[in-house]
Amino acid sequence: MNSAIDLIVMGGGIAGVSAAMYAKRAGLKAVIFEPGVIGGQLLFMENVDNFPGVAMGTKGRDFALRLEQTLRDFEIKVNREAIREIRLQKNGVEVVGNDSAYAASGLIVATGASFKKLGLNNEERLLGRGVSYCAICDGFFFKNKDVAVVGGGNSAVEEALYLANLCRKVTLIHRKSSLRALDYLQEEIRTLPNVEIIFNSTIKEIKGGDFLEQIVIENVTEGRTQTLRCNGMFIAIGVSPNTELLKNIVSADENGFITTNEEMKTSCDYIWSCGDCRKRPLRQLITAASEGAIAAVSAYKHIKGHYISS
Amino acid sequence: MNSAIDLIVMGGGIAGVSAAMYAKRAGLKAVIFEPGVIGGQLLFMENVDNFPGVAMGTKGRDFALRLEQTLRDFEIKVNREAIREIRLQKNGVEVVGNDSAYAASGLIVATGASFKKLGLNNEERLLGRGVSYCAICDGFFFKNKDVAVVGGGNSAVEEALYLANLCRKVTLIHRKSSLRALDYLQEEIRTLPNVEIIFNSTIKEIKGGDFLEQIVIENVTEGRTQTLRCNGMFIAIGVSPNTELLKNIVSADENGFITTNEEMKTSCDYIWSCGDCRKRPLRQLITAASEGAIAAVSAYKHIKGHYISS
Repeated sequence: MNSAIDLIVMGGGIAGVSAAMYAKRAGLKAVIFEPGVIGGQLLFMENVDNFPGVAMGTKGRDFALRLEQTLRDFEIKVNREAIREIRLQKNGVEVVGNDSAYAASGLIVATGASFKKLGLNNEERLLGRGVSYCAICDGFFFKNKDVAVVGGGNSAVEEALYLANLCRKVTLIHRKSSLRALDYLQEEIRTLPNVEIIFNSTIKEIKGGDFLEQIVIENVTEGRTQTLRCNGMFIAIGVSPNTELLKNIVSADENGFITTNEEMKTSCDYIWSCGDCRKRPLRQLITAASEGAIAAVSAYKHIKGHYISS
Repeated sequence: MNSAIDLIVMGGGIAGVSAAMYAKRAGLKAVIFEPGVIGGQLLFMENVDNFPGVAMGTKGRDFALRLEQTLRDFEIKVNREAIREIRLQKNGVEVVGNDSAYAASGLIVATGASFKKLGLNNEERLLGRGVSYCAICDGFFFKNKDVAVVGGGNSAVEEALYLANLCRKVTLIHRKSSLRALDYLQEEIRTLPNVEIIFNSTIKEIKGGDFLEQIVIENVTEGRTQTLRCNGMFIAIGVSPNTELLKNIVSADENGFITTNEEMKTSCDYIWSCGDCRKRPLRQLITAASEGAIAAVSAYKHIKGHYISS
């Protein structure tokens, strides 16, 4: 078993990279475990237009390359092994990979989350070109344009409300005959003149060339289809945190998002969490980066023995 | 009186700019009030080396210019009037400037904080060239080098602890005969072999060419002076939030830092706060930027009537 690691960071998105950077800057020996490519959700973003200090129009992939550069600048090692299991030890954690097991004084979980997909043709190709999973991230691009939102839960209605304030028209499409969102959200959405709700309907087809142009909606009770012209489609049918390995180890909410205190500390003494896998008020690149920094400094204080509870 | 402003953002540092950007992206009419130059603490930073996604070695002033560009990109107006008074109204706030009064549905306070200075020659000139007010920001630059920390409270001892993990030697200099820091911090610092504490002493002189080279320390009880060669000096004698105008309006801690919930909401229904003027676990550019985004989205929900308490 490998030892002498202060801190293991699970996940190479912006939260994990920020955590590893702050850990290294604090003098900790930190390793990132990321079996895929560094960058997380950035790899699926066309442009990053909402990160203060980074020029508008910066490509998501270029931003991801900058994070790789940050890891090189700070000489932070990336271990490509997939992690199979996490075990609590007396004074830290043991992380079991495919090839080896690793002991560390602390673990930062920054494994992100996955948006549920419709699974349609063109959904991936038009991502960032009309198709989006995040209104706060991409809504501004559709100012005074027509958009659709798919879903009927709290997230879908919140996305629709947010977009209604920006867009000319919002069409909310839900496969059931009534919304699942909280009552006051439903009341709010019904008062807005530029929102139309289409019930009992699913998306059958996504059409467009370089950008989304129209979607085909099927009424599942009546079988008929209609075509809706729209510039944007926001898919809000759910998001799942990548926290399976942490089940029964740290506290989480009913959807599996890890709960922490303000210093990103989980219910377990040696584990912190940050980014999309954490329960938090706003899911954005900038919040993930901030949480990574806070988690690392909090872990540093704990590992170096002067942890301040707050 | 001017009206029809959704949101006033007080302060043009990174927290305020981030808040205004997120507000504008949400479709709010937002105005920044900043009597000085856009950039806040960035204007005093030589290099920004700890902001994920921004290249190492980026000059603080260049980063500040990017924030100005962000305001232009999003067509966010900056009002240069100094604010004299904040008044609560029935459905919002009234902000009284030198020339005029402005009504708004919400106010985000991002006025920052000021580090207490020693007031010595060279202190300003060598800022970012050896002199610093933040170990987590600048400590890494002094890896394996010798540094001094000035102060005797919690912050000073925490800075010394952080630096002791990175630097060859840390000299903590305090003007009194004992530290004011919490007991367990004092115990921790005394166990470290590379920390020396000099009591009853003040800094008389700061010397250096392009970079800090030495400091002259005076023992105030005995009158004698000694010269200490060091690469860095961290001044931790206090930080004051710029929150005078908010006294008796929103809750704050004993030092005047504004207290908020996780969504940056203050004790007042129409006021949010973010950045250095807010009580928070980690004072960094990246955390301030994140808090600005959260404050703006929280304010947007409130102003647009679908505020979700959490």
